[in-house]
Amino acid sequence: MTDDTQARLDRLEAQLQRATDELDIIKLLARYGPAADSADQPAYSRLWADGGGLNSPVHGLIPQERVMSDELHLKLCEDGAAHVPSIPFIRIDGDTAVAYHYHRVYVPGPETKYFSTKGAVVARLAYIRNDLVRTPAGWRLQRRTSIALAGDQTKDAQQLMVEASEAGARD
Amino acid sequence: MTDDTQARLDRLEAQLQRATDELDIIKLLARYGPAADSADQPAYSRLWADGGGLNSPVHGLIPQERVMSDELHLKLCEDGAAHVPSIPFIRIDGDTAVAYHYHRVYVPGPETKYFSTKGAVVARLAYIRNDLVRTPAGWRLQRRTSIALAGDQTKDAQQLMVEASEAGARD
Amino acid sequence: MTDDTQARLDRLEAQLQRATDELDIIKLLARYGPAADSADQPAYSRLWADGGGLNSPVHGLIPQERVMSDELHLKLCEDGAAHVPSIPFIRIDGDTAVAYHYHRVYVPGPETKYFSTKGAVVARLAYIRNDLVRTPAGWRLQRRTSIALAGDQTKDAQQLMVEASEAGARD
Repeated sequence: MTDDTQARLDRLEAQLQRATDELDIIKLLARYGPAADSADQPAYSRLWADGGGLNSPVHGLIPQERVMSDELHLKLCEDGAAHVPSIPFIRIDGDTAVAYHYHRVYVPGPETKYFSTKGAVVARLAYIRNDLVRTPAGWRLQRRTSIALAGDQTKDAQQLMVEASEAGARD
Repeated sequence: MTDDTQARLDRLEAQLQRATDELDIIKLLARYGPAADSADQPAYSRLWADGGGLNSPVHGLIPQERVMSDELHLKLCEDGAAHVPSIPFIRIDGDTAVAYHYHRVYVPGPETKYFSTKGAVVARLAYIRNDLVRTPAGWRLQRRTSIALAGDQTKDAQQLMVEASEAGARD
Repeated sequence: MTDDTQARLDRLEAQLQRATDELDIIKLLARYGPAADSADQPAYSRLWADGGGLNSPVHGLIPQERVMSDELHLKLCEDGAAHVPSIPFIRIDGDTAVAYHYHRVYVPGPETKYFSTKGAVVARLAYIRNDLVRTPAGWRLQRRTSIALAGDQTKDAQQLMVEASEAGARD
């Protein structure tokens, strides 16, 4: 192998690793909603690293093992809620990563003139920071911090956005 | 070429093919809305493989060639509807793939105090499974199964989410 | 280096460049909302190339430097608005690119029975064309054309969708 070939292979492998990491994290984030909205605790737990959990300014840290059996969560699932993320901004740093995105919790809403079934409304709009870790089985969630864009929390959610912009500036 | 170079090139090509496939499928899914919402049958048909069509528990299989001229669809387009997908979970298996995502059909909603134009409401919220096939011209839709998160269909939509989680577990 | 190795490296580098470009543009678009919704003019300006600005059929061209201090924009941020894009269709052509996506501006909406905080409604639904340029610092926005799916603008928004479909057909 010539030095030039070696250098090009090294560069390709590093750059492709980063692209693959980002796509794998997008796929992990896309699995959050269906696991949560079907109240499927085993599927939900597979998204998390050991010791993982939700974090919010209102409820503090909640171990992920307890989220699916939460009374409000079960009510949401019974009614047909949907947890839907926006496209994320992802920043990878070796074996850890952060991913920021908007988040909506939809619940049933009024029927419109177009369909015979009910529509949906956004019951909760939040900005989210996911802390992720690379495990032998792939990327997993470690911490998921969700701050509502509503009432008193709005300024904290916007502070999280400022933090996301700073992460973006270093990218 | 040394054996080592050969092995590294082989691995890079396989891994990059998967990343490119995922990005190409994301782009295909992002073309669904604009084709549908402008009632552009030729553009819509370009997204599909031969024999492709929509599948729903309510209407059964509808060939894609008939979707754009559907009376309800034309009414939606006249009023300015938008078919908007969430980030998908994609799983590729050789020359076929599945992509799962949430789906919203927006229709005009009440005006707010912020803008002089009307806002929008979600008239239909669904969970979707796209079956895709690799063709000589690139990835195309083969079947698109959409189940509303509403009323009686909610449990079936959640069952599709359980299926998505199982596909994720094998990823 | 053999001719075969050379050819495979060349092909890998070109294909990986395209994948990396698409992921970088997705990340740039994901930074638009948090910069805008926190009224963070420095962060917002970092997303733009020199001379960049918003374009709309109603307001014409607005230099990006003026957007964050706009009175309506500051009111939106004070109330906790969110600018949320859908997954984009991206087409790269050398050092320029276009990215098309749906766009929603959320504002506070009615409280539901599920949460103690207010929900959100879509005050503005639009289809967007981003013109991007590759700079030494990475991809940046040059022009962002936003047309509401509402009232008189609906047909123009749908015309932008037809254009997106045509870009997709050439992809």
